[in-house]
Amino acid sequence: MLFACEPTASTPEVGDDEPVSEAVTPEADFYLTAEQTHNKFSATIPPVITVPSGSVIDVYTQEASAGQISCGDGPEVLADLKFEPIHPLTGPVYVEGAEPGDVLKVKLHKVELTECGWNSILPGFGFLADQFTEPYLRTYEMESGDTHIQFNDKIQVPLNPFPGVMGVAPATEEMLSTIPPRENGGNMDDPHMVEGTTIYFPVFVEGALFSIGDAHATQGMGEVCGTAIEAPMHIVYEVEVLKDGRSIPEPEYEADDYYAVTAIGTTVDEAAKKAVEYMVNYLVAEHQLNRNEAYALCSLAGDLKIAEVVDVPNMLVAMHMSKEVLGI
Amino acid sequence: MLFACEPTASTPEVGDDEPVSEAVTPEADFYLTAEQTHNKFSATIPPVITVPSGSVIDVYTQEASAGQISCGDGPEVLADLKFEPIHPLTGPVYVEGAEPGDVLKVKLHKVELTECGWNSILPGFGFLADQFTEPYLRTYEMESGDTHIQFNDKIQVPLNPFPGVMGVAPATEEMLSTIPPRENGGNMDDPHMVEGTTIYFPVFVEGALFSIGDAHATQGMGEVCGTAIEAPMHIVYEVEVLKDGRSIPEPEYEADDYYAVTAIGTTVDEAAKKAVEYMVNYLVAEHQLNRNEAYALCSLAGDLKIAEVVDVPNMLVAMHMSKEVLGI
Repeated sequence: MLFACEPTASTPEVGDDEPVSEAVTPEADFYLTAEQTHNKFSATIPPVITVPSGSVIDVYTQEASAGQISCGDGPEVLADLKFEPIHPLTGPVYVEGAEPGDVLKVKLHKVELTECGWNSILPGFGFLADQFTEPYLRTYEMESGDTHIQFNDKIQVPLNPFPGVMGVAPATEEMLSTIPPRENGGNMDDPHMVEGTTIYFPVFVEGALFSIGDAHATQGMGEVCGTAIEAPMHIVYEVEVLKDGRSIPEPEYEADDYYAVTAIGTTVDEAAKKAVEYMVNYLVAEHQLNRNEAYALCSLAGDLKIAEVVDVPNMLVAMHMSKEVLGI
Repeated sequence: MLFACEPTASTPEVGDDEPVSEAVTPEADFYLTAEQTHNKFSATIPPVITVPSGSVIDVYTQEASAGQISCGDGPEVLADLKFEPIHPLTGPVYVEGAEPGDVLKVKLHKVELTECGWNSILPGFGFLADQFTEPYLRTYEMESGDTHIQFNDKIQVPLNPFPGVMGVAPATEEMLSTIPPRENGGNMDDPHMVEGTTIYFPVFVEGALFSIGDAHATQGMGEVCGTAIEAPMHIVYEVEVLKDGRSIPEPEYEADDYYAVTAIGTTVDEAAKKAVEYMVNYLVAEHQLNRNEAYALCSLAGDLKIAEVVDVPNMLVAMHMSKEVLGI
């Protein structure tokens, strides 16, 4: 079975009061299929749809290889794997009113497994690429509602589906690779960005041009072997343009219990330093602390978190701050 | 009030069936005061006590400055702060039977606040030292059983007391600074090493020569401003010599819900790579995975965690693996 995923004839109805986690998925205003994709980040890629701020969008996404790897395949298929088609992203979505300097708020209402996924070690890729030189591929059968995959008789891994890539268009006409994350988001591979999370993106071009894809059924912090369980996904998200607020240099995000900043760097150290700076700036701007107090609070209660270390040349580090600590 | 802490006349009885968290603190076999300290790591520092494997030891520890900072002090005292006395460590404890190549298991039965603590920004020290050049000092009144400190009217930080420094003697006669963590442990500053945690240390010298101190009332992952809430502490721990098991290159630790490896490096990237290698080795040795499977499982379920980024020249990164995932 190919992973390239088409919505079935009976595209599931959303907004039918079916509870998803604790929240109800709102009814979608727009629908996109897993064929409405591109796989570069660029200001020049035309939008597949134009929507007003506040729209709810129901999308299907392909898995990372764009159908090159199929369920049941063995590692021999990796020899023919082409990097060029990697990261088909559903979009771009033009959001009316979004202008450079604004912030695009994206709330993930639903992130739902649809079918099987794969995990591999690709020679030459991954955090310990010098030590792991043999191709490895394993596929996992999954369906909506599954909570675990069985790794072996004893080991089972909880599923935690999330989109590995979410981003707006950068302010360039170049066709940028989707492998590294950048200031526009992209391949952030942060397993905290699950259903229920809200992500904030700096807007660089008119309409923001938001895209999403490369979903992972589960992933540890780091994605150290270079891949997660790469799987097609059904995602419902809401976009909103924020104006006249604090400008953000890189994506930030929040869940019920924490606020987080993210930062890229060509080393984890550099990304971590920038993440601390961004959290200091957030605390000063939003929580009435002076800079020394904000830095001290980062030391007492801020948690640096390595999101990914394999999307060369950019590592991604987040800093989380508990909302209970902040009294919000 | 000086922080240098003497046990009160009525040293609290341990082992009196008082519940600590869910566990009962076992009765101590040996007691050490906060005056029985040294502040270097070296094979040449004579032990303050010799104990059999299996002993429970009840110790008091001084705060990091060895009494140079007192409750209520302001930042002006930092101008006279001397680095030489920093990190008075209670010990060393010679554990009978421990030989190079063994593992010393240390279970933290109790980590209890005793009095107030301090947090500071020291010019020239800290992750963003180039940006924060003014001295900052704040002291916090605390006592045993407290759950939070009040940072300001709105912000409160939960307490999470743990020893910042725990280590065995290195195989050198040099008198090494206690600032950086090393293969023998030391200034690991990992906020996961709380009451209830078990830490495993590679043994480098006869008797292991274990020391503990530099306790923190609370700290975020990273300890980014260079200090936590530095506080004296009352700690009860148990030592056990493990022989003929897997040899470990650097400390590892576990709690009820996860197993963790740690690694130092002069960059976070280097430390993180070593942590992945160590977790792969652990999974191969203890969970019957081949190396590719172990690496893949690290990518799906292993969480890289930055413990500290300020104890120059060594950063510390841990990788955690859920015991639920491992089926243990």
